Amino acid sequence: MNNNFINNSFKLANIFLLSIVSVVNIPAQPPQQPGFSTTASPEISPDNKVTFRLYSKEAEVITVSGDWSAPGASEQLVKNDTGLWKVTLGPLKPEYYNYYFSVDGIRTIDPSNPLTVRDGARYASVLVVPGRESELYTVKNIPHGNLTKEWYNSPTLKMDRRMYVYTPAVYNKNQDKYPVLYLHHGGGGDEDAWATMGRAVQIADNLIVQGIAKPMIIVMPNGNANEVAAITEVQRATRSQNAIPPPLATGGGYEASIVNDIIPYIEANYRVLASQEYRAIAGLSMGGGQTFNIGLRNTDKFAWIGIFSSGMFGGVQGGYGAFDPEKQIPGLLTKSGAFNQSLKLFYITCGEQDPRYEYTQKAVNTFKENKLDVIFKGFPGSHEWKVWRLSLTDFLSRLFK
Amino acid sequence: MNNNFINNSFKLANIFLLSIVSVVNIPAQPPQQPGFSTTASPEISPDNKVTFRLYSKEAEVITVSGDWSAPGASEQLVKNDTGLWKVTLGPLKPEYYNYYFSVDGIRTIDPSNPLTVRDGARYASVLVVPGRESELYTVKNIPHGNLTKEWYNSPTLKMDRRMYVYTPAVYNKNQDKYPVLYLHHGGGGDEDAWATMGRAVQIADNLIVQGIAKPMIIVMPNGNANEVAAITEVQRATRSQNAIPPPLATGGGYEASIVNDIIPYIEANYRVLASQEYRAIAGLSMGGGQTFNIGLRNTDKFAWIGIFSSGMFGGVQGGYGAFDPEKQIPGLLTKSGAFNQSLKLFYITCGEQDPRYEYTQKAVNTFKENKLDVIFKGFPGSHEWKVWRLSLTDFLSRLFK
Repeated sequence: MNNNFINNSFKLANIFLLSIVSVVNIPAQPPQQPGFSTTASPEISPDNKVTFRLYSKEAEVITVSGDWSAPGASEQLVKNDTGLWKVTLGPLKPEYYNYYFSVDGIRTIDPSNPLTVRDGARYASVLVVPGRESELYTVKNIPHGNLTKEWYNSPTLKMDRRMYVYTPAVYNKNQDKYPVLYLHHGGGGDEDAWATMGRAVQIADNLIVQGIAKPMIIVMPNGNANEVAAITEVQRATRSQNAIPPPLATGGGYEASIVNDIIPYIEANYRVLASQEYRAIAGLSMGGGQTFNIGLRNTDKFAWIGIFSSGMFGGVQGGYGAFDPEKQIPGLLTKSGAFNQSLKLFYITCGEQDPRYEYTQKAVNTFKENKLDVIFKGFPGSHEWKVWRLSLTDFLSRLFK
Repeated sequence: MNNNFINNSFKLANIFLLSIVSVVNIPAQPPQQPGFSTTASPEISPDNKVTFRLYSKEAEVITVSGDWSAPGASEQLVKNDTGLWKVTLGPLKPEYYNYYFSVDGIRTIDPSNPLTVRDGARYASVLVVPGRESELYTVKNIPHGNLTKEWYNSPTLKMDRRMYVYTPAVYNKNQDKYPVLYLHHGGGGDEDAWATMGRAVQIADNLIVQGIAKPMIIVMPNGNANEVAAITEVQRATRSQNAIPPPLATGGGYEASIVNDIIPYIEANYRVLASQEYRAIAGLSMGGGQTFNIGLRNTDKFAWIGIFSSGMFGGVQGGYGAFDPEKQIPGLLTKSGAFNQSLKLFYITCGEQDPRYEYTQKAVNTFKENKLDVIFKGFPGSHEWKVWRLSLTDFLSRLFK
């Protein structure tokens, strides 16, 4: 991992003293509102042990599952004679975790915790264990950029569509033009994902204020070519709100639309440095595959390319057909010098425990053997947001320099 | 209720045919992912009966509660031998409802429904029963305005704070200047409330496209003077994420800050018609009281005032002291002619089943006896969003005309 980032994060922690640091003792309380409990959950002790609490006289089995352990793993809560269920886990490393309860087999968010996050159609509660590693994901007392939920017309996809646009804090303070990163979610995600699970706004705000990242605009489109907007914005045309969604059309349609529709819209409506050397593109998983194709097929438009945890290099078991870089992007291996000349950064990451790691490494080795300049980084974790937040952090710190 | 609004809503329903109209038959399915069910819930039949479903072999009692009935009321779900719990309610009138399950006494959202909403620190699932009354709250295939989560400096409150800003669809299409409505949430709410529970963005988009409302900017500040932003944006400074919040300071601090900080910020950063006749202020409940004081004490700044379901006229039982309009706003009764001359609209609403209704009527009668021009409207409902969405709809249709 980038040592620069680590050192500067220490600096951040020292400079900005406000944060989640004081410890308040709130005793577990009996239900205050008829029928439902409000109690201290989650509660984080000074040594980062975390206590989850929940009230029910009738439930038989309550468990908690979180991304501090493997998917599907769970810990049982234990009930006392007042009906208070409780478990203490950890110590947990500072991180921005998702978790949920299972109450007699029904998945629930923590009713005492106001922080939640949506992953596709499902909700989880959020646990922020404070410390250096989660510092960058937290709203600090610094200048903040704005986030706009923005509609644009896509002639390519024949609809008005929604995207999110982040402008850095300084954008409203001067008349300068700024570089742009086009940042893509993964399969099952939408335009909301990077700003919520990905903490992209907080990461950008915190890196920019420290001078680690350049002030930039970050555009977060919806990469599902059949969607107008996230399912929470535009309900599907059915009387069953959770109707099975149609198969995702993630092919050429979206890839053409970013070049034909999104970039022109952004450059007409924002103060943007509108040239190749000031345009970056990145994405995770499915969005990493889109980025690979869009970025490398349009090196006249993008100089900075970031691919996080893509399955396209062979996926989890050498799947997705044999990955043939030269077939995918003609000249990528045979004329690598031309790509090296066009691109300022060709950057690939993967979680070190992600089954995609092995095939990604193979692809990277092939690129290197063919003298294609590439930077490859592994981050601890599997196919999960922890890895993508670190990937974004490191990628942002390299852009437009 | 405004007949104009009703007639035009019929028009809307006819003009825009897309919407939630087709019926898809999705059978109740057994759990597809290990441990958790995904099934059709809620499912709305063509006659607007609504079926809720949930899987649990172990649960003892599961109920559903929604704002289609009185607070605290609930209906039991019944289990079959596969562990599928089910209840069919209604027919329910077209509306944008909130609901939650109780599983053995634990409040949960519907795990099969991707639509949720936050009310203060609590989440509920959302049920949209399609039809004329919920039409205006739905994202239609029309030009959409943008919503920006925006940070501004408040010298008055000595912090950077967050608000939401809606710009109408036409804003990015020309260089015109637009009027502004400053719209306030209630107690327990924050800058997020009108854009989520209040459906303010959809109401504005739909009314503007029909020509019922003028294109306008809508600013949704955080009216809690002690808050930087919603609890979901800035976690409170504690290791218990749900620590009991400090008492809300909703007095003079916020009221001074809108005039000193927010209006100047908006007028410096947006293309705004920056004069009294193009400024409106409104709010619900606590925000209605703020609006009463801010609006009537600054008639040089605001020409349009909307107060929805305020308790300040005597509250639920003639509380909040004896309401003395002349003491609250000197001259309001004795020099009502001056107020009539300054204001283009002094508009008050309340739910007809809200215990505040009686004292609001009394205050309105006092205003009228003193020849203060006021429009008072009752809407069916108690102290709830259904009333505030209708209040906003009717208020928007009267502004800037």
